[in-house]
Amino acid sequence: MEDNLLLLSNSKTHNMGYLAHAREALLDFLDGHRTIYFAPYAAAKTAYDSYTATIQEAFKANDFDVKVIGLHTVDQPAMTLREAEVLFVGGGNSFRLLKTLQQLDVLNVVRERVTGGELRYMGSSAGTNMSCPTLRTTNDMPIVQPTSFASFGLIPFQINPHYQDPVVGSTHMGETREDRILEFLEENDVPVVGLREGSWLRKRGAHLTLDGLTAARIFRRHTEPQEYQPGSDLSWLLTLHATFDQNR
Amino acid sequence: MEDNLLLLSNSKTHNMGYLAHAREALLDFLDGHRTIYFAPYAAAKTAYDSYTATIQEAFKANDFDVKVIGLHTVDQPAMTLREAEVLFVGGGNSFRLLKTLQQLDVLNVVRERVTGGELRYMGSSAGTNMSCPTLRTTNDMPIVQPTSFASFGLIPFQINPHYQDPVVGSTHMGETREDRILEFLEENDVPVVGLREGSWLRKRGAHLTLDGLTAARIFRRHTEPQEYQPGSDLSWLLTLHATFDQNR
Repeated sequence: MEDNLLLLSNSKTHNMGYLAHAREALLDFLDGHRTIYFAPYAAAKTAYDSYTATIQEAFKANDFDVKVIGLHTVDQPAMTLREAEVLFVGGGNSFRLLKTLQQLDVLNVVRERVTGGELRYMGSSAGTNMSCPTLRTTNDMPIVQPTSFASFGLIPFQINPHYQDPVVGSTHMGETREDRILEFLEENDVPVVGLREGSWLRKRGAHLTLDGLTAARIFRRHTEPQEYQPGSDLSWLLTLHATFDQNR
Repeated sequence: MEDNLLLLSNSKTHNMGYLAHAREALLDFLDGHRTIYFAPYAAAKTAYDSYTATIQEAFKANDFDVKVIGLHTVDQPAMTLREAEVLFVGGGNSFRLLKTLQQLDVLNVVRERVTGGELRYMGSSAGTNMSCPTLRTTNDMPIVQPTSFASFGLIPFQINPHYQDPVVGSTHMGETREDRILEFLEENDVPVVGLREGSWLRKRGAHLTLDGLTAARIFRRHTEPQEYQPGSDLSWLLTLHATFDQNR
């Protein structure tokens, strides 16, 4: 069976409710499935319940007739994920998220079942970052240390969620987002999709599409960054080889 | 002997030449020492020479009669650091910097000699981040994976260099710098100094001072962030206990 991924840059876009900007894509992604397991692990432990409640409310507010279950409320998340049909990994801090996924030992089961087309995977922000081979293109602060930077690896390239263009006229001396991604390309020969807020990637088997409200900026080593408009077919990204830790 | 640290938020401030904003502090820090070993490892390997040349020019432009030697040009950096009197660790990517320092096996010798007052330590940006117990409050993208997040540990608290206030009126949904530091405090009971561009910390023995052009914002768990003006005595930060990996 074909895999089925919905990778949102973010769950809440300026002036819109949670998930509202991606309602049609969500309908298509769920395709009638009504039970969603939600992984809140990118948030602080004390916020798991409230974060899950926010997501439950968001689906309700967008008129979805679905049941959203916090993965932290089940006894054995790894067992649950062997049977689940839809997994939604929410945003927050990617390092905290990955460390927790490692502790729960769910990376392999998710990778295998998503790749095998048995488990639909939906991410936003850190959850989208987690679908990449590694978390190496996150924007988050490394507040905790995962044992490895390797993540689900559901796609063969990297995504930078919340991609931001340089602020015109800024006097700040810190790196722009583009600077950071170019640094990544100095060390790794792996394409990076700069996914602006309001956009998402949709993958089904060998087909990858960009959609949403904004264009994406794609970075490749030794190549000028390229802009792609919503609706673009990006399936070619699935055919490229990723090589990490290769300095020029 | 007392240790001697100069920890700059950044090496170049808007509208000023490299290091120009901190000239007086540099004079005081060097106190007549004329040979500086410069660690360019936060930059890409291909840029080590040009980065070192930039720093050599900067000292010349500021009328310093010093010799700046790229640590990457010596045969055995760890051996050199056993004899050196001044080390300057430059900015760039903190993950790349830490990974290289680990590979060169220089963390222990620097820690011991700086703590023992034999080696003066100067950092800017990623180099300042490296003086902390860990790199966990860096702003950088995790483009490569160090074996551990533990860094020099020359001070018992964390610094966030290039600290930025929230952008007024921003519609971006990503976390502000303050949000990120508060996330750090959810997982770690360790003070964080948000060091704005143009400022630095100066440590000698039990004395720690904030100086430069801008105020700093200090974050502690369960406490409102506090602003401190240049000239503030921050020695109390050296007496606090740091506990990493402690969720509330």
